[in-house]
Amino acid sequence: MDKLTIVKIGGNIIDDEQKLKDFIKSFSGISGKKILIHGGGKLATRLAETMGVEQQMVDGRRITDAETLKIVTMVYAGYINKNIVAALQANGCNAIGLSGADGNAIAAHKRTHASIDYGFVGDVDAVNVTLVHALLQQELAIVFAPITHDNNGLLLNTNADTIAQEIAKGMSGTYDVSLIYSFEKAGVLLDANDDSTVINEINPAYYSELKTTGKIFAGMLPKLDNAFAAINSGVKKVIIGKAEQLPLLTEGKAGTTIIA
Amino acid sequence: MDKLTIVKIGGNIIDDEQKLKDFIKSFSGISGKKILIHGGGKLATRLAETMGVEQQMVDGRRITDAETLKIVTMVYAGYINKNIVAALQANGCNAIGLSGADGNAIAAHKRTHASIDYGFVGDVDAVNVTLVHALLQQELAIVFAPITHDNNGLLLNTNADTIAQEIAKGMSGTYDVSLIYSFEKAGVLLDANDDSTVINEINPAYYSELKTTGKIFAGMLPKLDNAFAAINSGVKKVIIGKAEQLPLLTEGKAGTTIIA
Repeated sequence: MDKLTIVKIGGNIIDDEQKLKDFIKSFSGISGKKILIHGGGKLATRLAETMGVEQQMVDGRRITDAETLKIVTMVYAGYINKNIVAALQANGCNAIGLSGADGNAIAAHKRTHASIDYGFVGDVDAVNVTLVHALLQQELAIVFAPITHDNNGLLLNTNADTIAQEIAKGMSGTYDVSLIYSFEKAGVLLDANDDSTVINEINPAYYSELKTTGKIFAGMLPKLDNAFAAINSGVKKVIIGKAEQLPLLTEGKAGTTIIA
Repeated sequence: MDKLTIVKIGGNIIDDEQKLKDFIKSFSGISGKKILIHGGGKLATRLAETMGVEQQMVDGRRITDAETLKIVTMVYAGYINKNIVAALQANGCNAIGLSGADGNAIAAHKRTHASIDYGFVGDVDAVNVTLVHALLQQELAIVFAPITHDNNGLLLNTNADTIAQEIAKGMSGTYDVSLIYSFEKAGVLLDANDDSTVINEINPAYYSELKTTGKIFAGMLPKLDNAFAAINSGVKKVIIGKAEQLPLLTEGKAGTTIIA
């Protein structure tokens, strides 16, 4: 099977102009077929402030009301997505930027929850493997914004880590997929503030232990859940690490490797 | 050659929720390969007001400074483009929304002018016929936002009428292209306020006469220049007419037909 590298880039990198520039150069240098999934960063929050739209957060998650959906659609699928694509083009990487509505790439449904109304938040139902494959065959790198749709005309704000996992799973029947979660830290750390405490490998038993002993900081848990969901569904390699080390991450020479 | 219908939709239609809804339904019903190019409407202006970004206009054209470029990228390539795509999907039309940066679809250069600095405004250099053809072959309807790029990482605000003309010209070597400029009026009118004065056909001699006698209102001239540029470069049919009459326009039974 052909190799496919899927990279998720975190919001803190997007907020840092120089780091983003360096990352885009590194991503352009990855040989073979590739997909980039980006989060949102602080731009949406700043725009909401400028526009006087109040942001509600529950358990660290943004509640996406109608005005917030409008803002994230503009910022994620418009500003961030198109600027990343233009920068990739400038680096000689022919990229195409998509939301989940484009080509029905990622279908989702509005989340329902017993007690919390998350608003216009989507949980992924299906990745359009045929479309993604066809675009990759055109030698295009695909850049996904974390916006999906419900096939009834509704756009939905969707977690970028989850999108990365779902695309990696979906494509693993057709490609030998490596999934890289890149962000501001060197990997999964025993001490969240010390990059030298990166854990090289995590298997399910060790993950249970780390959770039980409370050694992993809370924000890392959904990322690790996504990482294990991917490795348990046919994705060949899952690595979590520092965006600046992307070339090393793609070679498995840095970051935390997730073991099935 | 295969038929390809290219429709430009004007800003006044985008600003009217019901008209846009009806238009999207009509566009979804067009058989065969199709491309939609949308303008911006008043959303960008309203967002600029909310954000306190002052809009400069010269000769009816927006001067695109850095903040305005950010706004139009968000509104055109993000909010409008993705909502149109999602609405097309809801109508059973598998659409993909692109800016000119995506897949290097439309390369442009920053406009230079002896006396006016238009800012980040792009004049089109090339349409990527291979990419557009490949996407159409995937049975995708393509939805273009009026944003291009310069291959050096710069996004550029570009006139949607011109984009429609350039794409129509570019694709006319591969397809039997019909180009439809749809907007709020019934066609080219002898009296701008009276839809019953629509001119059925305009050839170059009549166009000269209309210009000389000052019978056509100023805003229509660039649209007609684009229309003639298209018909003189291999585009089979060029029609200007009312968005609500799209099915009739595609059959050549309404609007103004441009004759080479």
